[in-house]
Amino acid sequence: MEKIEIFAPATVANLSCGFDVLGCCLDSIGDTMIVRKNQINEIRITKITGQDLPTDPLQNVAGVAVYALLKELGSQQGFDIEIHKKIKPGSGIGSSAASSAGAVFAVNKLLDEPFKPVDLVRFAMTGEMLASGNAHADNVAPAILGGFSLVRSYEPFEVLSLPVPGDLRVVVLHPQIEIKTRDSRSIIKQNISLKSAINQWGNLAAFISALYTNDYELIGRSLKDEIIEPVRSILIPYFDDLNGVAMDKGALGFGISGSGPSVFALCKGEEKARDVKQALSNFFSTKDIAFDIHSSTINRTGIKIL
Amino acid sequence: MEKIEIFAPATVANLSCGFDVLGCCLDSIGDTMIVRKNQINEIRITKITGQDLPTDPLQNVAGVAVYALLKELGSQQGFDIEIHKKIKPGSGIGSSAASSAGAVFAVNKLLDEPFKPVDLVRFAMTGEMLASGNAHADNVAPAILGGFSLVRSYEPFEVLSLPVPGDLRVVVLHPQIEIKTRDSRSIIKQNISLKSAINQWGNLAAFISALYTNDYELIGRSLKDEIIEPVRSILIPYFDDLNGVAMDKGALGFGISGSGPSVFALCKGEEKARDVKQALSNFFSTKDIAFDIHSSTINRTGIKIL
Repeated sequence: MEKIEIFAPATVANLSCGFDVLGCCLDSIGDTMIVRKNQINEIRITKITGQDLPTDPLQNVAGVAVYALLKELGSQQGFDIEIHKKIKPGSGIGSSAASSAGAVFAVNKLLDEPFKPVDLVRFAMTGEMLASGNAHADNVAPAILGGFSLVRSYEPFEVLSLPVPGDLRVVVLHPQIEIKTRDSRSIIKQNISLKSAINQWGNLAAFISALYTNDYELIGRSLKDEIIEPVRSILIPYFDDLNGVAMDKGALGFGISGSGPSVFALCKGEEKARDVKQALSNFFSTKDIAFDIHSSTINRTGIKIL
Repeated sequence: MEKIEIFAPATVANLSCGFDVLGCCLDSIGDTMIVRKNQINEIRITKITGQDLPTDPLQNVAGVAVYALLKELGSQQGFDIEIHKKIKPGSGIGSSAASSAGAVFAVNKLLDEPFKPVDLVRFAMTGEMLASGNAHADNVAPAILGGFSLVRSYEPFEVLSLPVPGDLRVVVLHPQIEIKTRDSRSIIKQNISLKSAINQWGNLAAFISALYTNDYELIGRSLKDEIIEPVRSILIPYFDDLNGVAMDKGALGFGISGSGPSVFALCKGEEKARDVKQALSNFFSTKDIAFDIHSSTINRTGIKIL
């Protein structure tokens, strides 16, 4: 195979109770990428549409992720990478992750799959390091593996795939202000109270249990974050109002997607997701900030070959 | 029914990754209690064997737990409570929890079960408050509910029962030094690093997943505690040596039971548990500290009527 075209999905990381360890993959929004082998032993970002991003492969998350893969493989093969961005950088739904995960997925396919998906997650994390100064996996893992991903441990690196309750829907609203992951991380306190941590891990543990038992109400009760959300939500316009609107319409839970400014609501079933999306949309339309809004099923397979 | 005799089991709380939220119930060790209705509208601790504990019901965890139940019920019924202790106080395997959980379980039965098990957990927690100054539920919940219990939230109070992988065995070694839960709690730092907390909740989440998927190796990898264990293990003689002995013999994981000084090893299968028990026993026999050691299946039903 000389050329591959893929869909690189958006992802929602953290999911309130799982800061830096939990994420899920979306179906309805993502980038398209076309990757071709070249004969000049170089990585080139040959085209980027939709966003103004660096084409220097050392400054582009897709480029550095591919370099990491090729270095471990000891390969000199060159690739030309086209990126057609639909996911806005700084939106909080894994824009950099889609590019870095998509690039290593495509390159691995073109090389006849020398690496397993979990290795691709590791390579894609180098892209996250470039984007945010932190090699987190809670976007790149679900982008590559699909469904819900849990990062058990970073050293040694281990990621688990969790079951996906069939009726789960995600509504994502992106207020078009930009918050860089790097900035959004810098306001987080590096020490937290043990009491808050206990509350958080009780909720995360219950959330995991609920995924196995299809307990939608428990999913809702567990979607709590008393550590990061109180700090980061200050950066998000109308956060508390949006939370209220979503919960009033019957969302299971509501929170910040990744490092924001996007917010997400989990809902049970298509109809409820439509209601919540409509209500959030109606509310935000009265404000003076442009926004995107999406409703999506959980993408169980991750990156797709087109 | 005028009289009931019960087995009130020992429990292992925290299980390394689940400080204050996780616990499991044991089969092979526990107290016996006999509770009778009396006609004098008084709670009396009429007999305690095996240990020197207060018979004033306001100073005894069984007494205060029963008071809490009767108060919520608005009942004047009196009860005589006999406690035959096999679980040593201060051992770290839920001695106070067995007494308070056993007492409310027995009283609830004698009153024709006005309360659900989860309510009994709440009442038993008042006993824990008396014993340790902290109304934790990670011993009383598994004592009453059996199996693995997860406390999702204390306010509002919610506890979940988790699945029990069939081959799981627990080896518990109790070095006979006493550490009071109250003292053992006082050395814990009330602020922790966010990084440690993230590692901890990644492991706890993975442990929960492993219980659902019967993944014994993952149970082992998740049994980590970088927050509490480094501080508390200092109080436990030969902790690192015991850890090494258990892991060398093929234990899945090793840690502090509750607030110590008991330590536990989780093992897959009867034979492995026997090997680990023997090796720990051999090691500790060379030391100058008396000890008890038990190997147990997980008790799936909790308190039993005899």
